[in-house]
Amino acid sequence: MLKIGVEPLMAYCTDIFKLAGLNDEDSRIASQSLVEADMRGISSHGVTRIRTYAKRLSTGVIDPGSDISLIKENPSTIMINGGNGMGSIIGDKTMRLCMQKAEQSGSCFAAVNNGNHFGIGSFFTQPAAKQGYIAIAMSNAPASVVPYGGAEKKIGTNPLSIAIPTGDDNPYVLDMATSVVAQGKIIQAKKDGKSVPSGWAVDSEGRDTMDPDAALAGAMLPFGGPKGYAIGLMVQILCSALTGANQDSNIPSFWNNFEDPQNLGHFFGVLKIDSFIPFDNFRQNISEIKNDIKCTKPGVGFSEVLIPGEIESDRQKSAETIGVELTDAIIDDIKLLGSEYGVDTSIFTE
Amino acid sequence: MLKIGVEPLMAYCTDIFKLAGLNDEDSRIASQSLVEADMRGISSHGVTRIRTYAKRLSTGVIDPGSDISLIKENPSTIMINGGNGMGSIIGDKTMRLCMQKAEQSGSCFAAVNNGNHFGIGSFFTQPAAKQGYIAIAMSNAPASVVPYGGAEKKIGTNPLSIAIPTGDDNPYVLDMATSVVAQGKIIQAKKDGKSVPSGWAVDSEGRDTMDPDAALAGAMLPFGGPKGYAIGLMVQILCSALTGANQDSNIPSFWNNFEDPQNLGHFFGVLKIDSFIPFDNFRQNISEIKNDIKCTKPGVGFSEVLIPGEIESDRQKSAETIGVELTDAIIDDIKLLGSEYGVDTSIFTE
Repeated sequence: MLKIGVEPLMAYCTDIFKLAGLNDEDSRIASQSLVEADMRGISSHGVTRIRTYAKRLSTGVIDPGSDISLIKENPSTIMINGGNGMGSIIGDKTMRLCMQKAEQSGSCFAAVNNGNHFGIGSFFTQPAAKQGYIAIAMSNAPASVVPYGGAEKKIGTNPLSIAIPTGDDNPYVLDMATSVVAQGKIIQAKKDGKSVPSGWAVDSEGRDTMDPDAALAGAMLPFGGPKGYAIGLMVQILCSALTGANQDSNIPSFWNNFEDPQNLGHFFGVLKIDSFIPFDNFRQNISEIKNDIKCTKPGVGFSEVLIPGEIESDRQKSAETIGVELTDAIIDDIKLLGSEYGVDTSIFTE
Repeated sequence: MLKIGVEPLMAYCTDIFKLAGLNDEDSRIASQSLVEADMRGISSHGVTRIRTYAKRLSTGVIDPGSDISLIKENPSTIMINGGNGMGSIIGDKTMRLCMQKAEQSGSCFAAVNNGNHFGIGSFFTQPAAKQGYIAIAMSNAPASVVPYGGAEKKIGTNPLSIAIPTGDDNPYVLDMATSVVAQGKIIQAKKDGKSVPSGWAVDSEGRDTMDPDAALAGAMLPFGGPKGYAIGLMVQILCSALTGANQDSNIPSFWNNFEDPQNLGHFFGVLKIDSFIPFDNFRQNISEIKNDIKCTKPGVGFSEVLIPGEIESDRQKSAETIGVELTDAIIDDIKLLGSEYGVDTSIFTE
């Protein structure tokens, strides 16, 4: 384990992304998405992915020179062609457009096709919330989850993020996969020779399984049974039926396919708080709700009740001063990657 | 058990609502919400509630003569004062306004205060979906659910409905409470002297319980653990912080309090499909997704994989021809209510 400062790590990733083909501004956005994931403790979406992103850019399966383009526009909706660029960059730019339009119209929603894996959804929603918008972001993903009652994977982990301003520095941030857990946790259990908890996955006959091999041959379960299934399917519909992007069953792998663009679909949107209620009233109302929730007596086995995103927000603030903790395996890998690109790797020298 | 035709039942309920103070049009809307719930098999929100609604109207705790009023308007947002009218009527009228505005702007979202229990959410979203909109409806409710990790109820069952056109007569319809189950199921288990399944509720110390008495002294669990908690809390925020309506912890009971208006908040919205993509393309895309989901191999113990709302939609179509099945207890109660109001009760004569 080693702690790396946020700015040195940002600079390091930015250098790699530049050498992989992105321009200066885009390199910084792409790096920020990864570093912010590590800062928030969501290391599965952090710098551990930079090797694969760089390879996707270098092979051209993600187009490093692309930009988003506006296909269709109404006062409160936009249809965006992501141009097969980096998902994090597409999302960042699209969300800015949504906020601009919502200034006039009160709300704006964007459907996006020709997208790519977009990292953590809170990267898009949290900054919007800090600017006074209720924000939503979602993406479809390669099928890995069964529809409720099924034995075959048909739906992606289809992440959903919603952020809501609270008037203080800690917006409410929901950022979740619509599966019970990420598939990575099952792969990790297999590596560790452990079983997985009941309720995570089914085997190829749709039976609940604790065997990681059977789970990987089968599929993940949606969170919350039929309700979570319906929400994951809704994400698929908004991100593919509404955009013309690939449906979950047809999306090529992020990790293994460097020939066929993923053509993911995304859906973003913002509501401007003060188009409904003066922001100060909203701040007073939500502060009362936060206090009411936070003063809830904890249940047996819990030490406190948390606001969605509270842990991640605390971690992010702490990382700003003490840096990001990375495992030796991740450091070895991204240090090697830097050497391959000829980037100065001295930030990893203790 | 007795089957009653939809039109006679509608007419019967409409007569009662008129005598309780609603005008002709509003009586028909309020009746339709209840009868449609029974048609869809959601009898907890059906005509079994008409006695309490009628009493709320007669006592004036719901204002039978009110209308909605527009407080604030932007091209794609509206802020509505529900005027303490019937929730079903407020929602129906607000959703129509949303659709009108979305014709121009592409989307429209409405925050509503001074609302009341609004019945099944699909009553608002399904008709909008049939007119080519993706529609959302939600409401807050009196606190009965713990925040994840808590031992005190702080959040309502906060229902959420989303409907999406499919181009055929069966829109995708999600219509759910954000608790695992409705509290009514625990009350029923207590009546029947049965235990409740693990995972439904906690006792007053926040421990999982199967004892209905302990569950009723404690609180319901959110669906899907921390993820469902975050969604239920989001519904509270949109319906109360954004509207100025009562927060979940302060909402008077629908069943027992006939003095203090509930002042619920609601949130509605629509996205116009063809402001993003031509409707025919969307229809083609979603039809492919439906087929892909429907042809999923069922898991052990399941006979088929269902689209959200499929069972309810089938039941509704069937009820149109064969009528609505009501239990003897419900028939006895609403027949007595009709007699009290002097309404012709001959539809219940076999």
